[in-house]
Amino acid sequence: MDGQRQILHGRWVLPMVPDTGALPDHAVIVEGGRIRDVLPSLQVSQRYPDGTVEQLHAHVLMPGLVNCHTHAAMSLFRGLADDLALQKWLEQRIWPAEQRHVSERFVADGARLACAEMLRNGITCFNDMYYYPDATATVAAEVGLRCRVGLRVLPGQRALHLEPEDSLEGGLRIHDRWRRHPLVGTTLAPHSPRSLSGALMRTLGRLSRDYDLRLHMHVHETGEEVADYMGLHGVSPLQRMHRQGLVGPRLIAVHAIHLELADRRLLAEAGAHVVHCPRSNLKLGNGLAAVAELLRLGVNVALGTDGAASNNNLDLFGEMRMAALLAKAVGNDPTALPASAALRMATINGARALGLADDIGSLEAGKWADIIAVDVGGIAAHPHFDIVSQLVYATGANQVTDVWIAGRRLLEKRQFLTVDQQAVAAAVDNWQTRVPT
Amino acid sequence: MDGQRQILHGRWVLPMVPDTGALPDHAVIVEGGRIRDVLPSLQVSQRYPDGTVEQLHAHVLMPGLVNCHTHAAMSLFRGLADDLALQKWLEQRIWPAEQRHVSERFVADGARLACAEMLRNGITCFNDMYYYPDATATVAAEVGLRCRVGLRVLPGQRALHLEPEDSLEGGLRIHDRWRRHPLVGTTLAPHSPRSLSGALMRTLGRLSRDYDLRLHMHVHETGEEVADYMGLHGVSPLQRMHRQGLVGPRLIAVHAIHLELADRRLLAEAGAHVVHCPRSNLKLGNGLAAVAELLRLGVNVALGTDGAASNNNLDLFGEMRMAALLAKAVGNDPTALPASAALRMATINGARALGLADDIGSLEAGKWADIIAVDVGGIAAHPHFDIVSQLVYATGANQVTDVWIAGRRLLEKRQFLTVDQQAVAAAVDNWQTRVPT
Repeated sequence: MDGQRQILHGRWVLPMVPDTGALPDHAVIVEGGRIRDVLPSLQVSQRYPDGTVEQLHAHVLMPGLVNCHTHAAMSLFRGLADDLALQKWLEQRIWPAEQRHVSERFVADGARLACAEMLRNGITCFNDMYYYPDATATVAAEVGLRCRVGLRVLPGQRALHLEPEDSLEGGLRIHDRWRRHPLVGTTLAPHSPRSLSGALMRTLGRLSRDYDLRLHMHVHETGEEVADYMGLHGVSPLQRMHRQGLVGPRLIAVHAIHLELADRRLLAEAGAHVVHCPRSNLKLGNGLAAVAELLRLGVNVALGTDGAASNNNLDLFGEMRMAALLAKAVGNDPTALPASAALRMATINGARALGLADDIGSLEAGKWADIIAVDVGGIAAHPHFDIVSQLVYATGANQVTDVWIAGRRLLEKRQFLTVDQQAVAAAVDNWQTRVPT
Repeated sequence: MDGQRQILHGRWVLPMVPDTGALPDHAVIVEGGRIRDVLPSLQVSQRYPDGTVEQLHAHVLMPGLVNCHTHAAMSLFRGLADDLALQKWLEQRIWPAEQRHVSERFVADGARLACAEMLRNGITCFNDMYYYPDATATVAAEVGLRCRVGLRVLPGQRALHLEPEDSLEGGLRIHDRWRRHPLVGTTLAPHSPRSLSGALMRTLGRLSRDYDLRLHMHVHETGEEVADYMGLHGVSPLQRMHRQGLVGPRLIAVHAIHLELADRRLLAEAGAHVVHCPRSNLKLGNGLAAVAELLRLGVNVALGTDGAASNNNLDLFGEMRMAALLAKAVGNDPTALPASAALRMATINGARALGLADDIGSLEAGKWADIIAVDVGGIAAHPHFDIVSQLVYATGANQVTDVWIAGRRLLEKRQFLTVDQQAVAAAVDNWQTRVPT
């Protein structure tokens, strides 16, 4: 199938790059898992006479969404502990539950639940950080989802029981196992700056450069965390990371809420990436990130769902809309973060953050065919004044009907082709009976 | 059908009142369009041996949602003008479009689109404010949706072309036409305090009392509006309304964002109702309402979607989630506005605001059977630690599968029984070609 030519006709095609907006009555040509061309449907029969034809007459074809911050396996804790203060949530509910239940099997079952949900929500690539990254990677590869898993190269404060792979050598073995995989790769993912000494930071910096690995970290998530750090070190976490050479184009700085102007400028000048997780930030009461300001300074800002325990689902349509709406309130400016900017955050900016901008994030010739079809034929999507606006302000993830990753179809008319939905639900129900509420 | 007994078995029943949470394996008994009983499914065959049985084994049965602020017909302007400053949005886009296009026919077609969308999203009652209220009422009655339409008893600043019914007498004729209708009723709906003299306020107060009509108004929506009003009158709009006798249990104060403590206390002491429209407030950059504070003071706060031109859809599941998340950010408190409070706002609080608390808003014996079934069997709804949390933080309106209003089924497995979907879409497309973007 991958070797064959596929011709996908859409009512609209939204390539994201170039910035043309939604192109009416266009088609995407896929060959060998990659995008060969984007052109008006009327010109297809002449230029590409052969191929498997798919007609998506009420749909927008657009790049698969890139979820730049997840703890996939935590989907098993969805709804376990809501409406609680952050410390109580972590210390009395989440951490004890992790201590008791998290195992390789738990992570595999949870990651499979998350992969299924993400796939159905049009997410074709995710950037994960959790225990047993190899288990998450294995599940993603089985399902056919693109991902990056974070190596726990240094035991943080929340090591469960020190696994052999929670070490530098163990992490690099996982890295080596996946480094030629077409879908899966690795990042360095220490939890946050709090647990890192200067020497450890320098080691991470060297590894990141030597192996060309992204550095995936929570930074400046709570005001308290930043204040405590400054009390201890005299500088903000980001400034200290900068001194140790960690703030550069390989840094994926997640949350980045409580920033001074100097921190924001540093991120911009260093070419670092920020992942905005608006619903998680709200739900945990962590504050409102100044995203429009970061974008204005030239920072590449992507989107993440965070884990389902603090969200509570993995839906970037919801995050796009939230990001666009929230930025207007934060800036007291209804023109802040327009729909097109939210769409970029969820697609091409995400690809850039992961170092995959040459491969995914837009429908451009030569990139992998990571494509989703979004049905805008339903009554709640009418009228069609502005499709870009429609996608951000009035579209639910349930309108994603079809998903291709590297040209392989994984979702067809909302049916999974690579996930046994009953088996996933059964495994989840089994864990539910074991995790006390 | 209405005279027969219907037995609806749910995996859970969430009655809202009494505040029991979700009851597993319960059933709702409906007779003559009203709720007869809520009881464990196991006891049904003994106590209610006869009746039409509906098994909803993966579903939550709960009260239909009450949308307390809409401009239904504006669904025809969905996506017409997004990401614009409020004045530009109104003066350059929305008002000219209304001036050119709004007619009785436009309102009927737009209201039909809105009714279809609301029905499918589990909204069983709405409180509307727009031109040609009689046209909206007629459409709602045809579809079978419960509603209150606002009488334009006094021409506001935005009168299109003065219709005979945009007068006191005309409004009262509409009131009289609908006052015995089982689903439809009327409110007094002057646009906002700005256009009202003291004498007009007193007239409205008298009418509201004499005819027992709710007073549905936008109040304190923007900071500028409040400041201007205080410059002109020396007191806030709400304080002036209070002096003229308008602030009481019949007042439905929509938005109520920019409030002083005195205004908040006034609303609480007077027993007035507030309608929170979180997504519209964000999108138009109007600020963040202190909802948790209003609730703490004892104000009855309900939810509204506002019109689709500023939202951009009519989905109270989205508004519940947004209200719960936003309150946590506003109060810097992750325990603020828990899921159960958001559900109350969308159901029983809405019923109270409309003066319908004896008739709808909960699944209690004697109330109208306005019931929705929400499918939580899907993968993204697993696990099921907390159904109330699930409904607010992880449920999409697309999970509403069935809707009954006064015991009459209007949506069955997501199919409309009283709406011709193709005809609605065709009418919308026709308007789309006429409204220039």
